[in-house]
Amino acid sequence: MGLKIGIVGATGAVGVEAIKLLEESKLPISELRLFASSRSVGKKIGFLGEELPIAELSFHAFKGLDFVIFSAGSSVSQQFAPIAKESGAIVIDNSSFFRLQPNVPLVVPEVNKEDLKSHKGIIANPNCTAAILSVALWPIHLVATIERVIVSTYQAVSGAGAKAILELETQLRHFVYGKPIVPEVFPEQIAFNVFSHNSPVTENGYNGEENKVMQEIRKIFHYPNLNICATCIRVPVFRAHSESVVIETAKKLDAQQTRSILSKAPGVLVVDDPQNGYFPTPLKASGKKEVLVGRIREDLSHPRGIAFFLSGDQLLKGAAWNAVQILQALL
Amino acid sequence: MGLKIGIVGATGAVGVEAIKLLEESKLPISELRLFASSRSVGKKIGFLGEELPIAELSFHAFKGLDFVIFSAGSSVSQQFAPIAKESGAIVIDNSSFFRLQPNVPLVVPEVNKEDLKSHKGIIANPNCTAAILSVALWPIHLVATIERVIVSTYQAVSGAGAKAILELETQLRHFVYGKPIVPEVFPEQIAFNVFSHNSPVTENGYNGEENKVMQEIRKIFHYPNLNICATCIRVPVFRAHSESVVIETAKKLDAQQTRSILSKAPGVLVVDDPQNGYFPTPLKASGKKEVLVGRIREDLSHPRGIAFFLSGDQLLKGAAWNAVQILQALL
Repeated sequence: MGLKIGIVGATGAVGVEAIKLLEESKLPISELRLFASSRSVGKKIGFLGEELPIAELSFHAFKGLDFVIFSAGSSVSQQFAPIAKESGAIVIDNSSFFRLQPNVPLVVPEVNKEDLKSHKGIIANPNCTAAILSVALWPIHLVATIERVIVSTYQAVSGAGAKAILELETQLRHFVYGKPIVPEVFPEQIAFNVFSHNSPVTENGYNGEENKVMQEIRKIFHYPNLNICATCIRVPVFRAHSESVVIETAKKLDAQQTRSILSKAPGVLVVDDPQNGYFPTPLKASGKKEVLVGRIREDLSHPRGIAFFLSGDQLLKGAAWNAVQILQALL
Repeated sequence: MGLKIGIVGATGAVGVEAIKLLEESKLPISELRLFASSRSVGKKIGFLGEELPIAELSFHAFKGLDFVIFSAGSSVSQQFAPIAKESGAIVIDNSSFFRLQPNVPLVVPEVNKEDLKSHKGIIANPNCTAAILSVALWPIHLVATIERVIVSTYQAVSGAGAKAILELETQLRHFVYGKPIVPEVFPEQIAFNVFSHNSPVTENGYNGEENKVMQEIRKIFHYPNLNICATCIRVPVFRAHSESVVIETAKKLDAQQTRSILSKAPGVLVVDDPQNGYFPTPLKASGKKEVLVGRIREDLSHPRGIAFFLSGDQLLKGAAWNAVQILQALL
């Protein structure tokens, strides 16, 4: 019969990647149904040699589908994911809407694939920064029990969507042509600048992105008391997020042990050549499914501390690839 | 009579700023003698309405000078700072050459001005990242005793000199014109990328820049056992370094107490408006003598932790302004 899969947000940055990954996946897909907002209706997207039309969402849109991947923002997921579920499809949702709901599993397959067993029709895909981080932390946690995480991020603009990518391009062009730079999408100039992530700061002093990272890692790890402190910063990079990470473990690890653990870990690529100064960068991570980890060293400020630096493609492992991995794990 | 001041490296990024700051300083300067490498000899630089010639360094170059500010790299300082000192001038050296020598004070005036009293003719100006960080840490340390510092940096290219600034500009132009980008000054592409600071990684797993930050903060604070872990990352920003900082203090502070301490601290400007998302950025810090500090909040991962984010102009507080402050303090 073959699989019938729907993609909501098919023209967005994550949707486009999901379609490509499904194409590569060799899954027996008999139907791919694409959805986007009304202004994309009429466009076509290529998939395995066919030109597929884009439809608008409706109450009956999901009929007959086995799986629907949502990447069109929280309000679309809130409204349509329950409808897709009622239609009999399993929903894999990229938005933040369902992530912290107790009856919705939040899954990074390398970490907590088992949680898929308890799903009730909706599975949440984590925040991109959290997903990338979890892949590097989990294998260390299994061996040495992580007691504390301090992470500072270097986040690409594509996390904020296609408009943000265009904004960085426009500002660069204005710089080269000597025209004034006026921020429109982001509240601050992004070219030649870095700024605190533009999600609102909440009561606890942390912004929305930081709270997501902290809360989601705890849920994915089933570790509600994990001590974690995140600082999320936007940088003028098009694609792939980077993170400077310092951890404390219950069991002492040295750099070599950590490198060895990470080099065997699923979804991790150790890129750590101090002699040649070759380490993870967002350019190296762009287009890769793995999270690149390097600068692995002891944190000299703590008897059981380890520091490292990672880069991961937030559109792939941080979104579309993690969703496709969930789909594959469900089969 | 007036002051007779020499500037070595007068055409470099730091030298140019030092000349501007001396011009603004209203110090009674009767002579400003400018030095640079042979290829700058013949050029002139304006100072208080006069066009001053640029001379080459020689054994007798410093005769009659009261102060000489060196910003021409370690090998020039190594060779010529002792000669300037022998000529009777007090040397303020921006290079790393003398910084860790026990008989050379390493001074950030807001922190350890008293150390100037014990100078023996040479005073060292700290690494830019360390200088900026020290101004924010010291007032907190005085009240609550800092026990540990974890810092991840977002460093501008101008820390690597004029060639690095040109490299970022060239790569941006190539991007806009659709030409290939080939790194020349930095080992990796700097446009739309971030990478581990390009100083060599030493035995302990930390690169040269990270070791400087850790060792210099300890010396400036007279705190050889301070626990500190630095991760130094280069970002595609022209000017001003930013730092994501997490500290642990002996005495518990909350965010409001920390904000209050920092708002009264010399050399610090608190830029921390969570409601409007207005925080330090390198663009806001460029051209400012103060270090901008914001995102001040409790580190939820530690009972006595505080997190904040800062931006400071590494050519000013990180170099030229700190040198001029030292000069003023000596008078």
